[in-house]
Amino acid sequence: MQSIYNIAEICSQHGIKEVILSPGSRCAPLTLAFARHPKIRTRTISDERSAAFIAMGIALQTQNTVILVCTSGSAAYNYAPAVAEAFYQHIPLLILTADRPPEWVDQLDGQTIRQENIYGAHVKASFSMPVDLSHPDAKWHSERIVSEAINIAQVKSCGPVHINIPLREPFYPTDSNPVKYNKDVKVIKSVSSQNQLSEADWKILVHEFSQSKKPLLVAGQSIYNENFIQQIEAVSLNLKIPVITDIISNLHPAKGSIKNHDLILSDMNSSHIQELQPELLISFGDSVISKSLKVFLRKFKSKYHWHIQPGAIAPDTFQSLSRVIQFDDPSIFLNELSKRTKSSSDNYYNGWKQRESSCEDKTQKFFPAENTFSEFEAINTIINNLPDNSILHLANSMPVRYANYIGIKEEKKIQVCCNRGTSGIDGTLSTAVGAALSTEKIVTVITGDMAFFYDRNALWNNYIPTNLRIVILNNHGGGIFRIIDGPGKLPELDEYFETEQPLTAENTAKDHNLEYHFCKKRKEMEEILPFFFNISKTSVILEIETDSKTNTELFKRFKKYIQDEK
Amino acid sequence: MQSIYNIAEICSQHGIKEVILSPGSRCAPLTLAFARHPKIRTRTISDERSAAFIAMGIALQTQNTVILVCTSGSAAYNYAPAVAEAFYQHIPLLILTADRPPEWVDQLDGQTIRQENIYGAHVKASFSMPVDLSHPDAKWHSERIVSEAINIAQVKSCGPVHINIPLREPFYPTDSNPVKYNKDVKVIKSVSSQNQLSEADWKILVHEFSQSKKPLLVAGQSIYNENFIQQIEAVSLNLKIPVITDIISNLHPAKGSIKNHDLILSDMNSSHIQELQPELLISFGDSVISKSLKVFLRKFKSKYHWHIQPGAIAPDTFQSLSRVIQFDDPSIFLNELSKRTKSSSDNYYNGWKQRESSCEDKTQKFFPAENTFSEFEAINTIINNLPDNSILHLANSMPVRYANYIGIKEEKKIQVCCNRGTSGIDGTLSTAVGAALSTEKIVTVITGDMAFFYDRNALWNNYIPTNLRIVILNNHGGGIFRIIDGPGKLPELDEYFETEQPLTAENTAKDHNLEYHFCKKRKEMEEILPFFFNISKTSVILEIETDSKTNTELFKRFKKYIQDEK
Repeated sequence: MQSIYNIAEICSQHGIKEVILSPGSRCAPLTLAFARHPKIRTRTISDERSAAFIAMGIALQTQNTVILVCTSGSAAYNYAPAVAEAFYQHIPLLILTADRPPEWVDQLDGQTIRQENIYGAHVKASFSMPVDLSHPDAKWHSERIVSEAINIAQVKSCGPVHINIPLREPFYPTDSNPVKYNKDVKVIKSVSSQNQLSEADWKILVHEFSQSKKPLLVAGQSIYNENFIQQIEAVSLNLKIPVITDIISNLHPAKGSIKNHDLILSDMNSSHIQELQPELLISFGDSVISKSLKVFLRKFKSKYHWHIQPGAIAPDTFQSLSRVIQFDDPSIFLNELSKRTKSSSDNYYNGWKQRESSCEDKTQKFFPAENTFSEFEAINTIINNLPDNSILHLANSMPVRYANYIGIKEEKKIQVCCNRGTSGIDGTLSTAVGAALSTEKIVTVITGDMAFFYDRNALWNNYIPTNLRIVILNNHGGGIFRIIDGPGKLPELDEYFETEQPLTAENTAKDHNLEYHFCKKRKEMEEILPFFFNISKTSVILEIETDSKTNTELFKRFKKYIQDEK
Repeated sequence: MQSIYNIAEICSQHGIKEVILSPGSRCAPLTLAFARHPKIRTRTISDERSAAFIAMGIALQTQNTVILVCTSGSAAYNYAPAVAEAFYQHIPLLILTADRPPEWVDQLDGQTIRQENIYGAHVKASFSMPVDLSHPDAKWHSERIVSEAINIAQVKSCGPVHINIPLREPFYPTDSNPVKYNKDVKVIKSVSSQNQLSEADWKILVHEFSQSKKPLLVAGQSIYNENFIQQIEAVSLNLKIPVITDIISNLHPAKGSIKNHDLILSDMNSSHIQELQPELLISFGDSVISKSLKVFLRKFKSKYHWHIQPGAIAPDTFQSLSRVIQFDDPSIFLNELSKRTKSSSDNYYNGWKQRESSCEDKTQKFFPAENTFSEFEAINTIINNLPDNSILHLANSMPVRYANYIGIKEEKKIQVCCNRGTSGIDGTLSTAVGAALSTEKIVTVITGDMAFFYDRNALWNNYIPTNLRIVILNNHGGGIFRIIDGPGKLPELDEYFETEQPLTAENTAKDHNLEYHFCKKRKEMEEILPFFFNISKTSVILEIETDSKTNTELFKRFKKYIQDEK
């Protein structure tokens, strides 16, 4: 078992500090190796689906690789939704699945499935540990695999890596074979280099830039980074390039950025919209929430489209991609670009800015004039009341969409997270729990009732942090299906799309000893809010019950109001 | 969309009647195709992990293929634990996952992952629907795939089959393009033939049989089938072959079968145990629960070991396999064998029978002499009080192990189910919900608290049947880790193995409007039992709280008592 204990030591020497374990017997040597390692913190989460999202939340918050350990069998498959999410969100995870030795697979023993490559195309790499370590090459192999896996997980774009670990009995240490750590384990560290372009390449890029009178920056999903925000802000102001900062781009604190693109671009038939068509589109980061933005950029294609990212294979989200610029950090590239180029005329820039300013005014006038209380207003109020410098997790699908319409004020410096890798509702709450475990800041998760109950096992563990605030917009079903075109008028709407569900979170709160507040009126919500974010002895739930039909009507009225007023 | 509506018609013409849907927009054409089909019953379950186990429970109970429909993205991965379970339990499922068209995969659009072959080695086959149906060959292909998938799922050994279905907008029918069914769809039906051996093969088998004085039948997991029970009973009595009927073999009603093998074989060092070594072992069905039986048969290997099953690749569970006999129905083979052979001396047969009878007496004397109330006694009482001809679902891992020690009386004719394909705790409750939806008989699920809460979303839907009875053995953690050797003495036991959890099911019962009873004493349980199985307006929960340490001590005392008395 020494080779298993060595895994913990190698991981520790790579700087890994957090491990999420799930209970099992086959994985006992791994459990003990990590639980007893002095430099590693371990927690045990029984539901592996939640465990994996919690691990992902920790990795997202700490920006460090987190390890998952589970036993053999279907446990590994319960990790899969989070593994896919981490893969598309580029979050480094190292998944260690204990397994029967290969000769026992498919022999009708318990908890045995075909675990090799179980995550298919949703991990960066998948390794199998040798089961027999008597040959020195096998020992070399087993130690090498651990470093290789960590290095792959951490090289940009980061992502999950899987090591399947077949284990023969015995699983438990004895007095003569205790758990101990060999400091001389083989460790291969990875040193990354900086990206640089050749002068020839720069010449081409500067030429294309200078030919484009209407350059536009679009920021997709990125992590919150103060320095990065400042760099992008500087480039945008310096070159007079509008930068569209989708809510999940975490660039909303950048002064002068465009946050109201969902409103600005809401009417694709407007006669003025073509004025906003870019000639050079420069994008970076991952996905954007705004459907209007995607439709606009696909319809009014830019002549040149550069996407900046690590690696050569880039998504062509707007169907206009002409160059992939391989840079780990887009701000370094853009900084260099701004040194080599001059700002074009500021007509295009001002066009965006004026529309931004106009939409912002109108949105803020909308709610005070409304009598009807809705989830859209609730989310607006919550976002405007978030503590500065706190962390916001937004669930799919309506909360993040609403939030993108509302935007976040620059000065609040809110870090925004949302599982937009796969855009599932399956792990929102667990991801937020993981994040809250890794910071002392307030972590607020805004979720619909479907995402909340889907993932309520996020709360079924012994580690729920007191800095977690859970806002549930409960409309008793998947309200989005009433809002989007198509299912809204079908007789199957209630049962097959919206899927009405009667629960409130009151009993769940009782089960997990959480402070719980319920409201269904504006006034009730306003009474709770002043102390909702205060320091508390437990995590706190605020459940806001609204009516799905009212929400739909109001949101439609809002969109019409914006279009009419423009 | 007509090709999508055709899928429902083809499935219907293949005799499929049940579809479990999960909400989504991309899958809307599939949802509507099934929801509106007059011969198909649909239900909507929001948590796909639970949805897939519910579908599996229906398929298990109805012995007919059940269809799963989900939207694109991580939804498909939430099916994976049930898909693996169905694969190893040979339960026919047809999984239809809606997908983006291939050109949009990895382009940062929402709910898009790499869905082709997503279930890897845990489906019998995986198909991709053509996305463009303008060429007539593509139409032929798309209709052919559906029949192929159903035929593969239903040919023995049955199992899950996946069709990935990329869909372009529009997703919703219009007045000019309504949902309609074309009765002239292409359907390829499958006619299966009967298995027959050549006379030359029979000669060899009869020779081996006649050379073996000690033949032993071992039945692994099988579905409950009255006719099959009678056939096996007849062969056993006729040829004087002991038949070991593990609790999940569903052969316990066979008169004279050995049910106490866990006790008979509990002491591998007993001087008499070698007398039970078979010379010819004939096995059929899937896994067995009894670890003692596995250890015994691996240690005292039979000279010949025949395993009867469909197909050529068989598990070598007891490390003694010498022949795979390819027969879909083991009883037909054994019937024919019994016509061609004579019974050997009945010494070996009587040796097993005497031990069986002795162990049965002792077990029944144990509980009345015990003062301490434990979960082992509780499960004994529950099993003895089950309504005749009812259905029992046993959770992993302690409930099914306890039950295998206790056995079920022949005359009760209880159908036993347990997810021993992968032996996970992840879908027990959902599987039982699915089964209860498909019968009017009482379905009782006996589960530990870990399996119950892991899968509590089984109750988060609008279809909980009133014939479902849920018995929760709540010891506030994974009691098995205290019982098995190894972790019991570790300082990490509580946090990392047993994983203490404080919940009772009371609030869950409230959430879902279920009748709820709680007890922690023998007398309390005995007061509830007389009416627990009565007709009720809701499903009923009986939660039995016990102490994990007491349970462990008592179970150890029981095992010692059996060994001492033998």
